[in-house]
Amino acid sequence: MENIRVVIWGFGAMGSGMAKMLLQKKGVEIVGVCDRHETRVGKDMYEVLGVERGDRKPVIINSNIEEVLTEGSCDVCLTATDSFTKAAFPRLKYCLEQKVNVVSTAEEMAYPQAQNPELAAELDRIAKENGVTILGTGINPGLIMDLLVVCLTGCMTDVEHIQAKRVNSLSPFGHTVMEEQGVGMKVDEFNRRCEEGTMAGHVGFAESIQMIADAIGWRVDKFEQQMKPIVTTVDRKSPHGFAAAGDVAGVNMTGQGYVDGEVKIDMIHPQQIEPEMEGTFTGDYINIKGTPEVNMSISPEVEGGLGTIAMCVNMIPHVINAKAGLKTMLDLPVPRAIMGDMRDLIEK
Amino acid sequence: MENIRVVIWGFGAMGSGMAKMLLQKKGVEIVGVCDRHETRVGKDMYEVLGVERGDRKPVIINSNIEEVLTEGSCDVCLTATDSFTKAAFPRLKYCLEQKVNVVSTAEEMAYPQAQNPELAAELDRIAKENGVTILGTGINPGLIMDLLVVCLTGCMTDVEHIQAKRVNSLSPFGHTVMEEQGVGMKVDEFNRRCEEGTMAGHVGFAESIQMIADAIGWRVDKFEQQMKPIVTTVDRKSPHGFAAAGDVAGVNMTGQGYVDGEVKIDMIHPQQIEPEMEGTFTGDYINIKGTPEVNMSISPEVEGGLGTIAMCVNMIPHVINAKAGLKTMLDLPVPRAIMGDMRDLIEK
Repeated sequence: MENIRVVIWGFGAMGSGMAKMLLQKKGVEIVGVCDRHETRVGKDMYEVLGVERGDRKPVIINSNIEEVLTEGSCDVCLTATDSFTKAAFPRLKYCLEQKVNVVSTAEEMAYPQAQNPELAAELDRIAKENGVTILGTGINPGLIMDLLVVCLTGCMTDVEHIQAKRVNSLSPFGHTVMEEQGVGMKVDEFNRRCEEGTMAGHVGFAESIQMIADAIGWRVDKFEQQMKPIVTTVDRKSPHGFAAAGDVAGVNMTGQGYVDGEVKIDMIHPQQIEPEMEGTFTGDYINIKGTPEVNMSISPEVEGGLGTIAMCVNMIPHVINAKAGLKTMLDLPVPRAIMGDMRDLIEK
Repeated sequence: MENIRVVIWGFGAMGSGMAKMLLQKKGVEIVGVCDRHETRVGKDMYEVLGVERGDRKPVIINSNIEEVLTEGSCDVCLTATDSFTKAAFPRLKYCLEQKVNVVSTAEEMAYPQAQNPELAAELDRIAKENGVTILGTGINPGLIMDLLVVCLTGCMTDVEHIQAKRVNSLSPFGHTVMEEQGVGMKVDEFNRRCEEGTMAGHVGFAESIQMIADAIGWRVDKFEQQMKPIVTTVDRKSPHGFAAAGDVAGVNMTGQGYVDGEVKIDMIHPQQIEPEMEGTFTGDYINIKGTPEVNMSISPEVEGGLGTIAMCVNMIPHVINAKAGLKTMLDLPVPRAIMGDMRDLIEK
């Protein structure tokens, strides 16, 4: 059997991280990279990654997807270009129409049914028409605050209330994330941008809450979320970020899903650089009230960047094996690391 | 759509617990119970459970499966009769040949490929011939020391070593479990029975290790397990067990899966009554070395009895929806609690 052929669309931190991971795996190869960043276009992927090419063919980064991905040119496209379903839609549609399976890192694509049900239905229709599968995943949404919660309810006879809390460090991340999460901003500016609706913060609460609710059979009748600055009292410095004392070191986001008028799903997600400098220790915590109660913690938290890279690559075989259409993490078998030959995981 | 119809085969602690859980759920009904215990045969299930029957039809417990389960009489049979695949096989075969889906609590059935590959292949063949699905599951094997491990590797680019540790209390369990786990035995007798091979201990390490290895693509070239008495220095008493100081309060089991000559999967599972009396606190712990490292704990441990009951009932829709054949937890979507109508989860 031939190698599984992968195209990567978007070669920032996530896309290039997936490339590095794929190069360590057996039975899979990268056949094309599409990226429009001027420092990368026209260069060999191996050069950009700083990885020895050896006897592998060069993979020249091209900004024109039509020259990178055509019908039959690959088995799956990993798209790491967007956070929002609406923005990602034309790109996802293009891939599906070339009869190529898709894994998207767009946070909203982890459960596009939540906020874009029409686009979700449209993606499902296009995927089915072309006999391929599309999945959105990542560390969060995708695993920590949703799929893992769902999985843990599997050992419960009854669920009363769910709290998912992810306390993570932004220190490993680059400039884009610093901007999106307001690291280094003045508090006034942060608040002004929150009011304007131009602070990104974490994208995914609506998706995670709807995913959990749909999985266990709750009907969410109201969803709310809040965004607050995490103001540091000391200077904090990370490789790509700096917050002076009195400024913003990150974002504290909270979200609630109401069922029958009561908050049944609580999300708490403070993200900041150098949390330990003020005594905050990172971790992922899931507390589910019901029968039996389940109280889980992962400490420190699963690193977001590596986690997203791994989730997207590790889901490739499940996506290739799945029935055609739009799938979510709820539909597919559990994610798993791939330590053997990826081709062995493809169903005949 | 009509209710999902369930038959329960084996009405001990697990079978009767599943019945109680099912009676709380919407869109599902119990249409038959098979059990041979003289105190239960001929009685109404509701009377045995101590649950108000209301306007539901009586379900008379019958020791003859041929009078309880016939072709078309139900959608799924929950079998809670055995721990071992070989012992369970004739019963499982009977159900499949009546074109009925099966969920089995037998520990070895969580991954019969591990120790009974021929019987596993035979069950797969019979299930496919009859267009139905068979799954073995439970809290452990089934979730805590295998599926949850696999799920957590999903966010890892590379896995080097896995340790799964379950420290649990046997206090909630009844006489059968006390006997199987040696609670109250003299140490000499325990050791003699270990040598004879008649101590049950925990059944499932071989299954959990093989399930993990197959999932992530490791090849296990050697499997070992050890069984040691947990000797108490104080008198310990639980509702159904007693261990005097100097006697056995439970079993400490350890197991190892070797990959390329090295221990790559470590299992540690001490089970005892009243662990807190000697300063042991219960919990489930998964520590995975690799990139990134994942260190998870659930504290206290997920209660085994309730957990197994919930896993078996919660997997009913997945089993009905699955393609025909022998399935494992690796093949199906993640388990989840059922808080809505069970019929809504059945794919058209």
